[in-house]
Amino acid sequence: MTEEQLTPRSENFSDWYNELVLKAELADYSPVRGCMVVRPYGWSLWENCQAGLDRRFKETGHSNAAFPLLIPKSFFEKEKEHVEGFSPELAVVTVGGGEELEEPLVVRPTSETITGYMYSKWVKSWRDLPILINQWGSVVRWELRTKLFLRTTEFYWQEGHTVHATEKEAREETLRMLDVYADFAINDAAIPVIKGIKSEAEKFAGAVMSTTIEAMMGDTKALQSGTSHFLGQNFSRAFDIQFSDRNNEQQYAWTTSWGLSTRMVGAIIMTHGDDKGLILPPRLAPIQVVIVPIYRSETEKSVVMETADRIFAELKGSGLRIKMDDREEVTPGFKYNDWEMRGVPLRMEIGPKDVEKNSVALARRDRPGREGKSFVLQANLVETVKTTLDDIQASLLAKATAFRDSHISEAKDLDELAKAVQNGWAYSWWCENRECEIKIKELTKATTRCMPIDQPAGSGNCVICGKPAQRKVLIGKSY
Amino acid sequence: MTEEQLTPRSENFSDWYNELVLKAELADYSPVRGCMVVRPYGWSLWENCQAGLDRRFKETGHSNAAFPLLIPKSFFEKEKEHVEGFSPELAVVTVGGGEELEEPLVVRPTSETITGYMYSKWVKSWRDLPILINQWGSVVRWELRTKLFLRTTEFYWQEGHTVHATEKEAREETLRMLDVYADFAINDAAIPVIKGIKSEAEKFAGAVMSTTIEAMMGDTKALQSGTSHFLGQNFSRAFDIQFSDRNNEQQYAWTTSWGLSTRMVGAIIMTHGDDKGLILPPRLAPIQVVIVPIYRSETEKSVVMETADRIFAELKGSGLRIKMDDREEVTPGFKYNDWEMRGVPLRMEIGPKDVEKNSVALARRDRPGREGKSFVLQANLVETVKTTLDDIQASLLAKATAFRDSHISEAKDLDELAKAVQNGWAYSWWCENRECEIKIKELTKATTRCMPIDQPAGSGNCVICGKPAQRKVLIGKSY
Repeated sequence: MTEEQLTPRSENFSDWYNELVLKAELADYSPVRGCMVVRPYGWSLWENCQAGLDRRFKETGHSNAAFPLLIPKSFFEKEKEHVEGFSPELAVVTVGGGEELEEPLVVRPTSETITGYMYSKWVKSWRDLPILINQWGSVVRWELRTKLFLRTTEFYWQEGHTVHATEKEAREETLRMLDVYADFAINDAAIPVIKGIKSEAEKFAGAVMSTTIEAMMGDTKALQSGTSHFLGQNFSRAFDIQFSDRNNEQQYAWTTSWGLSTRMVGAIIMTHGDDKGLILPPRLAPIQVVIVPIYRSETEKSVVMETADRIFAELKGSGLRIKMDDREEVTPGFKYNDWEMRGVPLRMEIGPKDVEKNSVALARRDRPGREGKSFVLQANLVETVKTTLDDIQASLLAKATAFRDSHISEAKDLDELAKAVQNGWAYSWWCENRECEIKIKELTKATTRCMPIDQPAGSGNCVICGKPAQRKVLIGKSY
Repeated sequence: MTEEQLTPRSENFSDWYNELVLKAELADYSPVRGCMVVRPYGWSLWENCQAGLDRRFKETGHSNAAFPLLIPKSFFEKEKEHVEGFSPELAVVTVGGGEELEEPLVVRPTSETITGYMYSKWVKSWRDLPILINQWGSVVRWELRTKLFLRTTEFYWQEGHTVHATEKEAREETLRMLDVYADFAINDAAIPVIKGIKSEAEKFAGAVMSTTIEAMMGDTKALQSGTSHFLGQNFSRAFDIQFSDRNNEQQYAWTTSWGLSTRMVGAIIMTHGDDKGLILPPRLAPIQVVIVPIYRSETEKSVVMETADRIFAELKGSGLRIKMDDREEVTPGFKYNDWEMRGVPLRMEIGPKDVEKNSVALARRDRPGREGKSFVLQANLVETVKTTLDDIQASLLAKATAFRDSHISEAKDLDELAKAVQNGWAYSWWCENRECEIKIKELTKATTRCMPIDQPAGSGNCVICGKPAQRKVLIGKSY
């Protein structure tokens, strides 16, 4: 039950977020430092994300599998950059079955090493390639500053690990999965992410190239929402993934990895939410339609509930995710607030007058007050509801896209850059040298987010040093 | 690719099992002591188990959620029997983020403690009850003797954790979920499990009563395949799960927990498999039908593939899980063996003569050789295939039930008991005293499996001591 109001977003976006996650019962803090509990409503939202992604993974030829949670510590020392990146974040099991372990085991922070080891066993010939495997699960990276869904010691995700015979295929796979992520984010989560390439400094520990989908949150900060890495032969050399090619010669394979986590839930909250609570995109909402029956007497109740039950059955039968809120101990007004907090896209009110007129009242979560309210006939209600949900889905994406585009500014020099990152993201030519990247951070507290895949023609001058630059970069403050 | 044969079951059932798990590519050994890798074919089988169970959990009002993997060690000391049961099996994280932890964290062996802690936060009033939550994930229990799917340090499962206002409701929930497990095992996995109650000695550490579904494997050993526990107020007292009842009085709640793991995959293998490999029940098989096109020339190939592709599309469109084996580098005979090893329920052969006659050849995996082969018309093929799969599903259950029943013997004294457990399970009156249970094990190496829920009328005399006994018990050797 949710009675109190949220801190307005304009006042303190971070407080708004933290309060909302708790009040909408998406997640809770756990007694274990840095870990969260994902509550049923939040997990149901993640399950819908999983379904949307898993379908796309399978359509692109991938299978799921499961690799051990515990990984020998020595595995992390086999790839030089990987160990440097992950060592500070490891949780280490030193005791098992009452005895000190000879070799400590790491609770996986990511699975390139253990999959690499197994793949080296499985791959013998070019006929065994490609290997296209995904794993759903959780990983542990020690975190001191926690924020539910965005940064926790344990988080839930999927991690794809693939092996290919050629560099070309591995690079194609990297971009294919980036496309899958973008397609999911845009079409299911209604988040207009931008596909891009991470700078050398920001790439995954052990990757040759990291790609990302970057999303702009309601406070204009950037959220890296999914990454796909081309790992070259780094891990195949570290774990000896060799195969005999069509000419019977031994070759090191080429690998990729890609992951998307429960951060996506945070992205959904911060992209669409308003001061009344969540606004969930219909394709992912655990509850798409909530019916609130309205009556003031037992006579009215029996009349209203007969219609409400019939409509409930009809909508449910059509595959819609629907909830009947027939609680007796709270008022309709309380219920409206409650479901607004939880972001249900469409509310259906049914009272005695609606029954009389063969109509119902619909209230769209994305359009507050009268603007989002309409009275529609009960005839063809399934179609009306589905059309309305589609329109809400499209409207959320359009609104988020307009917001994003109005908060990205071209910036040609340091002055413009400083202004641009005050207002959102800057979009600038960059020479791709580390020195200029460091200066950007020192001077603006913003970081390079990505060099978008879609680049303008031509070239320009670096926003910092003025030297020739081949690619433009997005710069912004980030989570 | 699977070329070699398996050790016959009659020769060495354990070798047969170990070889089959590897050759059918269900799972593999990992470099981490006691942990397994579940390969895509095995994981797909488990995903189908998950879908069948998850649907039933949701139909009975449960939601999924996620609780932390790491649990403070002190939590395990709050319930006396729980700590005694689990202490010897714990994996303990002592280092996090490069530093020694003040309080060690346990990698969860089961989640009664962490859910108990969170539930005490969430439950205030009777209105908050019941809590009906399930979690899919993995747990870690240190094991020295490993057997893939049956006994591994990390294993995959679901664990339900529920809270109720009354003892009656919690006991009902315990049995409801036992029914759900039995329904899944019997109808989806075609395993004729017996529902029963564990003896005091065999119950879950911390439970008031443990119930189980027991399955008989192909070597007549018993496999505990799912358990549902009534926990009384043990965990609500340990974790202070109190609520104010309808009279505004504080009460301790009543809790249950229930779990089913990837052991079920082992149960499927050992219930149905034969010397040629797996036999998978159609409802759970990752591939229900495999098409093997047969041709000897390019001309024949183009004729055959046209029909094969059309049939493939038709069957796939009807929702069947179907695979086209169009490999060029191996013979049809090799393919037959390969898919027999992997237990695909139905093989469809299409050659030039079949195309001519508008027919196809069907070969049932559960009936070897000619007996399982038939030639059917292409007209109404979807219906023919679905009917055949239903018949295979029913035949597998019937065969397993007949096997089980022919290996359970009434045993009235020690002599009969010794003979009965040589041949399978004994079914005997038992006084339920610990001394007699210890004697059973000493004298026969078998253990009490469960007291079946369905009991005969009346009473009898204990198979060991001859004293009056109220319930009969199943006794057998077990995994």
